[in-house]
Amino acid sequence: MPAEPLPPTPATTVRRLPQRARYDRDTVDAILDEGFVAHVGIALEDRPVVIPMAYGRDGDRMLLHGSVASRLLHALDTGVPVCATVTLVDGIVLARSQRNHSLNYRSVVVFGTARRLHGPQAIAALTRIVDHIVPGRSAESRGADDAEAREVIVAELPIVEASAKIRSGPPLPAREDDEGTGAWAGVLPLALTAGAPTPDARTRAATPPPASVDGWTRRHPSG
Amino acid sequence: MPAEPLPPTPATTVRRLPQRARYDRDTVDAILDEGFVAHVGIALEDRPVVIPMAYGRDGDRMLLHGSVASRLLHALDTGVPVCATVTLVDGIVLARSQRNHSLNYRSVVVFGTARRLHGPQAIAALTRIVDHIVPGRSAESRGADDAEAREVIVAELPIVEASAKIRSGPPLPAREDDEGTGAWAGVLPLALTAGAPTPDARTRAATPPPASVDGWTRRHPSG
Repeated sequence: MPAEPLPPTPATTVRRLPQRARYDRDTVDAILDEGFVAHVGIALEDRPVVIPMAYGRDGDRMLLHGSVASRLLHALDTGVPVCATVTLVDGIVLARSQRNHSLNYRSVVVFGTARRLHGPQAIAALTRIVDHIVPGRSAESRGADDAEAREVIVAELPIVEASAKIRSGPPLPAREDDEGTGAWAGVLPLALTAGAPTPDARTRAATPPPASVDGWTRRHPSG
Repeated sequence: MPAEPLPPTPATTVRRLPQRARYDRDTVDAILDEGFVAHVGIALEDRPVVIPMAYGRDGDRMLLHGSVASRLLHALDTGVPVCATVTLVDGIVLARSQRNHSLNYRSVVVFGTARRLHGPQAIAALTRIVDHIVPGRSAESRGADDAEAREVIVAELPIVEASAKIRSGPPLPAREDDEGTGAWAGVLPLALTAGAPTPDARTRAATPPPASVDGWTRRHPSG
């Protein structure tokens, strides 16, 4: 089922570079599904605080998980306005003019009220986050028990007010006289890639990495 | 010259996981020097907004560059409280319990007042940012002219109130009965790696990638 486009609101209207802004829900979801770290901003007494949090997408909501400072716990219990931003870096754009150097990237900004989950909801959210980051991993591990769930800080954020920005392709040309310099310009593509899986000390020596880890590595090949 | 340690302040005191917090300036600088994308938070009428920006470090300040929405321009001209967070993702931590899944990462949070630079300061800042992201690139490209500098949004943020957080190593053990399952647990290391440089259409066919691009690829080998 194709997702509905999201209506631009004042907070998500990208004013400076409108050609880079996209509001369709499929674009937003594709970026959220590839990423797994969100930078979550909260205004604490007019002062911004930005914290990296692991996340998973579960349909129309982001599930945020991380080491939130305790002073935020109460705010999350009652619901707190947040801005969760996810950025995937795709390349370094090298131009002939320093001004036209740039990055190729895809990013999503989600505005909304984040609320902490408890009990069975928190346990289910953890499972979903694990499978978002490493698909199939939940079947290879056990779910949190009640005691573990109480220690965990996991919050849900509805994906209602959201927008995506994408920059791709070669550098923009600058002045005409730059062209004659013979300088190299172009893009250095970047990707997050996996190295060799490292078992912990309690993994039996003959145990191969599980299917979830093999799958992740296959989807993020190096070179 | 070794940098001075930064005094923890209420805003940078990491309360929940103090064992992961570091305040020494060398740790902060090493993380800032490896990264090049900051997630910059601003409180707009009590509402947080988090924007990804390219940056460079120049001694005791971060130089932020990006497509800031125009409604932020005036705030940057007079100086605006921001939180700039940089996160390097080093691996996925796979545990036997879903609750103990985690990420290995290094992050820095810088709090302060960001102020827009103009004229020669903006031109010099652009040069520094280019060399931060791709060392040596400024010598292969030309500096911004006055007209270009006027279009550019670049702001400085003093590195005074800052802290680092680092998580590394294997998963934490959970319940004793998890050990007997024979399940694989460990770390999948991750790194941002470079693919093959792609010249733009105006680069002459015989021109090899420049030294700066070769150097970047060498420092971020894949596999």
